[in-house]
Amino acid sequence: MAASSRPTLESVARQAEVSRQTVSNVLNAPHLVRPDTLERVQAVIAEVGYRPHRAARTLRTRRSNLLAVPMQPAPVAGADVLDRFLHALTVEAQARGNQVLLFAAADDDAEIAVYDELINDHDVDAFVLTATHIDDRRTEWLAERNTPFVTFGRPWGATARHGWVDVDGAAGCAAATQLMIERGHQRIAFLGWPDGSGVGDDRRSGYRQACQAAGLSVEGLERSVVGEVEFGRSAAAELLDSADPPTAIVCVSDTLALGVWTELTARRMVPGQDVAVIGFDNSMTASVLGLASVAQPLEDAAVACTAMVDAVLSTTEPAAYPPEPVLLKPHLVLRASSGDLR
Amino acid sequence: MAASSRPTLESVARQAEVSRQTVSNVLNAPHLVRPDTLERVQAVIAEVGYRPHRAARTLRTRRSNLLAVPMQPAPVAGADVLDRFLHALTVEAQARGNQVLLFAAADDDAEIAVYDELINDHDVDAFVLTATHIDDRRTEWLAERNTPFVTFGRPWGATARHGWVDVDGAAGCAAATQLMIERGHQRIAFLGWPDGSGVGDDRRSGYRQACQAAGLSVEGLERSVVGEVEFGRSAAAELLDSADPPTAIVCVSDTLALGVWTELTARRMVPGQDVAVIGFDNSMTASVLGLASVAQPLEDAAVACTAMVDAVLSTTEPAAYPPEPVLLKPHLVLRASSGDLR
Repeated sequence: MAASSRPTLESVARQAEVSRQTVSNVLNAPHLVRPDTLERVQAVIAEVGYRPHRAARTLRTRRSNLLAVPMQPAPVAGADVLDRFLHALTVEAQARGNQVLLFAAADDDAEIAVYDELINDHDVDAFVLTATHIDDRRTEWLAERNTPFVTFGRPWGATARHGWVDVDGAAGCAAATQLMIERGHQRIAFLGWPDGSGVGDDRRSGYRQACQAAGLSVEGLERSVVGEVEFGRSAAAELLDSADPPTAIVCVSDTLALGVWTELTARRMVPGQDVAVIGFDNSMTASVLGLASVAQPLEDAAVACTAMVDAVLSTTEPAAYPPEPVLLKPHLVLRASSGDLR
Repeated sequence: MAASSRPTLESVARQAEVSRQTVSNVLNAPHLVRPDTLERVQAVIAEVGYRPHRAARTLRTRRSNLLAVPMQPAPVAGADVLDRFLHALTVEAQARGNQVLLFAAADDDAEIAVYDELINDHDVDAFVLTATHIDDRRTEWLAERNTPFVTFGRPWGATARHGWVDVDGAAGCAAATQLMIERGHQRIAFLGWPDGSGVGDDRRSGYRQACQAAGLSVEGLERSVVGEVEFGRSAAAELLDSADPPTAIVCVSDTLALGVWTELTARRMVPGQDVAVIGFDNSMTASVLGLASVAQPLEDAAVACTAMVDAVLSTTEPAAYPPEPVLLKPHLVLRASSGDLR
């Protein structure tokens, strides 16, 4: 027969007939719990030998050598950057004696819902979060509990209470735009995401800065769409059909650039000869299509994240003394679609 | 300051001044170790409180709820299938209360080198191996030690001593070839990998069977190259330049099909109109390009693997009583390159 499982937050909650949140409060904020409930839950915890919050303890005598990392939803074409980061992170973590423990999460709430179990049941040393965004409740949750963590992605719109590693997206899009200017393009469009995504706004700012520095107008040359190939394609069609169409299109992502590429080839136009296109993230698909792209230094990011985890684990109050952030420079990969030979 | 780590196979080996293999032998095959060495290593193990081989114990009283999964090297374009399987596996494992623990491994020896540590240091319940191949020493190693594991991929050329889940590649390539025959193609080529890869040989056999059943010759229509885009491209060029070129090309992988696609478009030929192309694995890149492909049912495979892990964990002698294997059917995704509309 199957062996019995070790006690979890879930099983404690069930046995004590309270919610998981109540068990969490007993462990983290006992002043919020009614005395009789507190007593009952503590009795169950003692009875089943449940070990609360190893990762949040301020004096750790040993490590699990496990880093918990969210598995983001399966990507679409052109958006494989987090999968490639995960490859690099697994290798770099292991080189430092750590292993990556994956957990599935469709959104912030789903992630937070499993944090307690990862901490309690698996004794994870630290978290490495990805896909940070504005109003990121995950980082608040972890910082409040003094849980060791770092993020690949900066704390958009928030005051940093944690260490982070990121890539300078504004610099990447500025370099892509600058290249187009040097090649003689005067009408350069930007295909971005709607306002309010930290990553997208940052990348767009690089495009605007480069155009402004060169005295080029961006009037009528910006489009914002959600990040799927078909939306990139229809935005490209609209730009190409406008009275004064662009001769170059810089994109916030390879996925949108693939939409541009699809529309151009459907019109029997040659990317890089008729209209130049530059994407972002240097996806596997971009390399096959000859799509120029801004490449993130993913191995460097993985090295920086794993080193920063070690730094965070050496302090007892990571939220009070977060390590210095690391902002890495991306580089342009020139290909046929930028007007360069493959 | 940094906390101390828990004892590992490595640290025991260092302290006892022996190799890691010797420590492993002390634990698994003590009759192979000289008595004085055996005594010294056992003394160190007792002293540091090292816990040997939790996962191989025949009577388990509790579980770690960790499944160890090898992170394969970062893929090339068209070869994202194992990354997508990992997404599905993480979700399905978590739905059953388990988490995926990743480990990096460049080859069989590198994998085997970390098995002991995963078992001893992380108490992993079981392994889910991928990319099985002929002469796969990994499965032998685990089966000999009665360690619970299943594989996504069958035990090519070996007698199965373990549970496995796989997708019927021969049936997939037969269906792709059959479709081309129904569309009226008489000269259908197959672009495969060199003889000796279990997966590649199996897929090629499906192509041959379908041609034979239809009375079509495969003479001069087979090419074997290593699996990178440029080799697919040069093989396609050779086929197209031959005296009696094929009108359809079935490929062992999307990566090679992308090579065919690249060569066709460079010749201003339209895939699916001038020459039909079908790949294998339904990669993200294939969906963007309109490349028809054989799709593996990855969610079903993940469900079957995680269910099989539970079955294996319920027996004390998995190598003696492996569960029934599961062979799933792939399905064809028709797109422009097969002569179908997107």
